[in-house]
Amino acid sequence: MLISLILAVTSIIFLPGVLLAGGAAHGNNGGGMRRSRRLITSSQDAPCMRMKVYYHDILYNGDNNANATSAAATQPTALSRSVSINDSFFGQVIVFDDVVTKGKALASEPVARAQGFYFYDNKARPNAWFAFSLVFNSTAYTGTLNIMGADLIFNKTKDLSVVGGTGDFFMARGIATVRTDAFEGLYYFRLHMDIKLYECYV
Amino acid sequence: MLISLILAVTSIIFLPGVLLAGGAAHGNNGGGMRRSRRLITSSQDAPCMRMKVYYHDILYNGDNNANATSAAATQPTALSRSVSINDSFFGQVIVFDDVVTKGKALASEPVARAQGFYFYDNKARPNAWFAFSLVFNSTAYTGTLNIMGADLIFNKTKDLSVVGGTGDFFMARGIATVRTDAFEGLYYFRLHMDIKLYECYV
Amino acid sequence: MLISLILAVTSIIFLPGVLLAGGAAHGNNGGGMRRSRRLITSSQDAPCMRMKVYYHDILYNGDNNANATSAAATQPTALSRSVSINDSFFGQVIVFDDVVTKGKALASEPVARAQGFYFYDNKARPNAWFAFSLVFNSTAYTGTLNIMGADLIFNKTKDLSVVGGTGDFFMARGIATVRTDAFEGLYYFRLHMDIKLYECYV
Repeated sequence: MLISLILAVTSIIFLPGVLLAGGAAHGNNGGGMRRSRRLITSSQDAPCMRMKVYYHDILYNGDNNANATSAAATQPTALSRSVSINDSFFGQVIVFDDVVTKGKALASEPVARAQGFYFYDNKARPNAWFAFSLVFNSTAYTGTLNIMGADLIFNKTKDLSVVGGTGDFFMARGIATVRTDAFEGLYYFRLHMDIKLYECYV
Repeated sequence: MLISLILAVTSIIFLPGVLLAGGAAHGNNGGGMRRSRRLITSSQDAPCMRMKVYYHDILYNGDNNANATSAAATQPTALSRSVSINDSFFGQVIVFDDVVTKGKALASEPVARAQGFYFYDNKARPNAWFAFSLVFNSTAYTGTLNIMGADLIFNKTKDLSVVGGTGDFFMARGIATVRTDAFEGLYYFRLHMDIKLYECYV
Repeated sequence: MLISLILAVTSIIFLPGVLLAGGAAHGNNGGGMRRSRRLITSSQDAPCMRMKVYYHDILYNGDNNANATSAAATQPTALSRSVSINDSFFGQVIVFDDVVTKGKALASEPVARAQGFYFYDNKARPNAWFAFSLVFNSTAYTGTLNIMGADLIFNKTKDLSVVGGTGDFFMARGIATVRTDAFEGLYYFRLHMDIKLYECYV
């Protein structure tokens, strides 16, 4: 009995991530017949859940009403205009409701919406800061992942924090590793997001 | 001795939420005579703390200087105006310092202030994104809860993430389930917030 | 064998913070030869990592193009202008890419950049809300800490939540206790930040 008690403790704390992915994937919000979810934490090597997706930002250019999924909510700041001949956008806030897909193509299988905002925060070159929710509403997943952090333009890949989750991602935490996958002019860019959760309730 | 060591581990990890609510309620920030707080995590069935409150948003309408507790910080975006005959507000940012009460009535017992912002992020219908702090400064509680997430208009209830806390809510995490309780014209709405913490330091 | 298993559990959960600071300090992102990082949690008395730094906000005043590190992205709201003869700035959003130093002097050793935004959210007196990343890129640390919360002007010190971290601060959580250290006119202020992490992956 003593041994089983110990194992109960260790199994909840140390269950390897691979075994848990299924549980997280099929999670539901209510209790129902299902046992109540509890926290498991993973090691940095073995996230309890992982997902690779593409984020498409189609900025409003004054002419793409039907397609645009993001738009500038403010103008670049006066500081921005004063320090750069090419407007560096310092302080410009962009609000988005962007499509997130499984494949690179905008027309590939949609996985989620990314709803949130970013703004530029560097005088000399674009450097951005993001906060948003990934909103899942499909047969595979329902729920959200809430994400924030610095998009450091000088790094090839950058890590944002997954600070919480809801629904199938109840109370999750993790890291979203972001890489710019394409940049087409001023009005479209695509990010690859490798989302790794290290704290899951399963 | 070996057994007590094991029980020490399990008691900290598995203490049921109901037993802990009192500790969290009377928590203080300093150490003093009190033992130092440690993390306990709860199961999805039994939050370590729970609180139901009402959030009142009284938007500035140009004429309610004394009563207004929120105001538009930006205009709706050009995209917003281009896609909708009824302005859908896409990209409009609203800053608030709203009253949070125990009962439905604005005049009922105040519990906290909600200080933060939301913005609209949908072209066709209002859909919002929130980030704010619940600021408690009463005999019952002092401290803050920090909250962010998507307010999905197509869902009757929606879950935001409680991503951190301070003071009596030191290091807390949880879920705030939000439901629109009233919507009176363009300048007042009331949200019911069911706040459940699953990670508490007690 | 049974004893060592128990100790394995307790050592990961209960390792005192002081022993772990070194590990966190020298952390790297990849696995390499190093064992994979796991969560440790600390008691409120003994953070697993602590750092005291100064944050310098140099607001754009129309004339300090070279030195300014922050700028207003929006104007104060109409509500703000209507309730105050001294403009209270309610709703004004400021974006920053500020220097964070080890000592009080702006010219002292740089530790990080603070990239993010704040806005004012009180009609009668300045009260602010912050969300930002501390971006470390030095020989001591690389990575980010993501922080949000209310800067309550009526409190001498106020606690913000450290809601996530990346790189050397992989998955960290904690509290940033902020105190206004200097306020020079409308265009410069300095905050002292005492950052205490209570959840570290080491």
